Amino acid sequence: MAKGNMLIGQSGGPTVVINQSLVGAILQAKKMKEIGNIYGALHGMKGILAEDFIDLRKESTKTLEQVAITPASALGSARKKPTDAECAKVFAILKKYNIRYYFYIGGNDSAEATHIINEQAQKVGYDLRCYHIPKTIDNDLRENDHTPGFGSAAKFVATAMMGDNLDCRALPGVKINIIMGRNAGFLTAAAALARVYPDDGPNLIYMPERPFSMDKFTKDVEAVYKKLGRCVIAVSEGISDADGTLIAAKFSKEVDSHGNVQLSGTGALGDLLATEIKNRTSITRVRADTFGYLQRSFPGIVSEVDAKEARTVGILAVKEALKGKEPSGSIAIRRKPGKKYAVYFERVPLASVSKETRHVPDNFINKKGNDVTQAFFDYARPIVGKLPKIGRFKGVKVKKA
Amino acid sequence: MAKGNMLIGQSGGPTVVINQSLVGAILQAKKMKEIGNIYGALHGMKGILAEDFIDLRKESTKTLEQVAITPASALGSARKKPTDAECAKVFAILKKYNIRYYFYIGGNDSAEATHIINEQAQKVGYDLRCYHIPKTIDNDLRENDHTPGFGSAAKFVATAMMGDNLDCRALPGVKINIIMGRNAGFLTAAAALARVYPDDGPNLIYMPERPFSMDKFTKDVEAVYKKLGRCVIAVSEGISDADGTLIAAKFSKEVDSHGNVQLSGTGALGDLLATEIKNRTSITRVRADTFGYLQRSFPGIVSEVDAKEARTVGILAVKEALKGKEPSGSIAIRRKPGKKYAVYFERVPLASVSKETRHVPDNFINKKGNDVTQAFFDYARPIVGKLPKIGRFKGVKVKKA
Repeated sequence: MAKGNMLIGQSGGPTVVINQSLVGAILQAKKMKEIGNIYGALHGMKGILAEDFIDLRKESTKTLEQVAITPASALGSARKKPTDAECAKVFAILKKYNIRYYFYIGGNDSAEATHIINEQAQKVGYDLRCYHIPKTIDNDLRENDHTPGFGSAAKFVATAMMGDNLDCRALPGVKINIIMGRNAGFLTAAAALARVYPDDGPNLIYMPERPFSMDKFTKDVEAVYKKLGRCVIAVSEGISDADGTLIAAKFSKEVDSHGNVQLSGTGALGDLLATEIKNRTSITRVRADTFGYLQRSFPGIVSEVDAKEARTVGILAVKEALKGKEPSGSIAIRRKPGKKYAVYFERVPLASVSKETRHVPDNFINKKGNDVTQAFFDYARPIVGKLPKIGRFKGVKVKKA
Repeated sequence: MAKGNMLIGQSGGPTVVINQSLVGAILQAKKMKEIGNIYGALHGMKGILAEDFIDLRKESTKTLEQVAITPASALGSARKKPTDAECAKVFAILKKYNIRYYFYIGGNDSAEATHIINEQAQKVGYDLRCYHIPKTIDNDLRENDHTPGFGSAAKFVATAMMGDNLDCRALPGVKINIIMGRNAGFLTAAAALARVYPDDGPNLIYMPERPFSMDKFTKDVEAVYKKLGRCVIAVSEGISDADGTLIAAKFSKEVDSHGNVQLSGTGALGDLLATEIKNRTSITRVRADTFGYLQRSFPGIVSEVDAKEARTVGILAVKEALKGKEPSGSIAIRRKPGKKYAVYFERVPLASVSKETRHVPDNFINKKGNDVTQAFFDYARPIVGKLPKIGRFKGVKVKKA
């Protein structure tokens, strides 16, 4: 491999462990004699186009390790899909800075952007090693058993749901919790991990993989409420009706440059569902919370497995870029078969993780489309790790005097 | 003291440490030979009126300790102010079960209910020891330096704000976070503890103690955004305009039996403020999150000081009821003067913590009414305890080629 400089950037929605991947890549790069300068692009594609780079060799190991455990893209992020003209410009900038090693941490949109840059390099025969490093709390990257960022976000959601279930048990009513996940319901499904006792919430789970019907929703809620006197519900922000229209889209016209409707940062969907339940039933205490950005940024609620794997994909991307046969790719997490949790990592082509995303598989969703199955628990538990222990009274009733 | 039975209940909004007080009281009661049966009223006043009691002597120490670290009123809670007729009924029930020791864990409304029961007992000469045990994340009980539940809720808010600030630094914009606190801005003020670096959010803080002006708010946000390219804001759910009208009340007509408007469980206030900023400025990325019930129920985010003090007030209420001179009262937390954090506990009359609440003192609020002062940091830090450590890059810019 020719000696050259390295550029790394972070893109899309941050996660709690995205800096583990970044720091893993930097520390590995520092070991490689082929790599000269290590540049960090500020705010992803925006920083690349503006040549807004920082010198990552100037950061101490202490700072790097501190950044690694800090949530949210330390280099800054962006939701920017480069146009054809911008891709040409990016490519000119890579040449100008003699960048031969290019790493972009993100989801499927980031993989696509990386793919375009790589194709440009291939076309003109520019020797570029071009790797995507996976990241998304949505857990919707193809080729991956699961993605870095998901485990920790899932841990937050499950922990929050655990507390909220206790709160709703103390002050009973209907409680609707809106959970992130644009197209895939993995994070919403993770709410199920909160259950300790059989009657624990979430009592109902609605994922974008099944069409959402307000009538069915109302009936489901009424049935649980009748049985338990309360009902805690996990709803994905990405639920759509039978025609495929996002329920939340009725309230938001805002789209990013990838064409995605803004779903987070508003309580509108939760409030809509709460109002419907109030209007359609006789239940008086109906509340909605939208877990919002806390799901992807809350310091300290980290899955250890997730943090470790996030670090590993960063390290492996650099190793693969330098030692691998292919000039480009993404690092995918695969799970080994068997009862004991174990993963291995594989280089996959950029195109295989770009554009289309994956969804919660059918065997993780119950027949009624309002809960998860045991298969989901088996899948998610080792990724999320330990949750807080809670207790409740045996509650021996006193005979009335 | 005559031998008799004990009744304990929990009331109002749960906290993460409210069961520490409950378990502290139960364990102390078990040591007292004067106390016979230990009854737990399910759902506070509702359970008392329905004679819906559980036998707390049937709970093992292991269960009790597990419940102690579990968020949200393990006995169930209620927002119920007893009418005069109901108070008479409560009193009849106390007599029927030979209850001589009565403990009620809650905020100012719960203290008032306890006060009424006590007056009833005094009037007819019924020998009742009647104690209120303080609890409220709002931190607005008079007589107290701070209240059990506040430190842990404040830790959640500060931690969440820390993460959210990092998220907004990665993807810049205006971010509005709505924080609990009906009449007092203590919890909103606690968001300030999230700051590590000088430009860290929350960059603006709005408490109910100062009238909220949409014009001033817009100007404040624009000024911060112009300077930093982003703005993270902490807003109390209880903000009111100059006429004293709750901003959130425009969206909610729901009131509880204490006459309180429903503020939580809806994203309406955040969405209103976000819409105003979008309409009044040229800033495009404006988001709002409502931290919601997570603030008072999130398992594991606990201030150690808070947990310990919550346990202590439970223990002391029982001790005071049995050994103290006064038949009734509440246990107040006082702070010793001096730089090192230290508290002591005192019995105070029920009336002194009933009805009216306290507010954030003037010296904790800056002149502009949009931030806290150093005095607040000195006050709050020891109550909240340690927060996660975060880091950021030194960020040495690369010279443009």
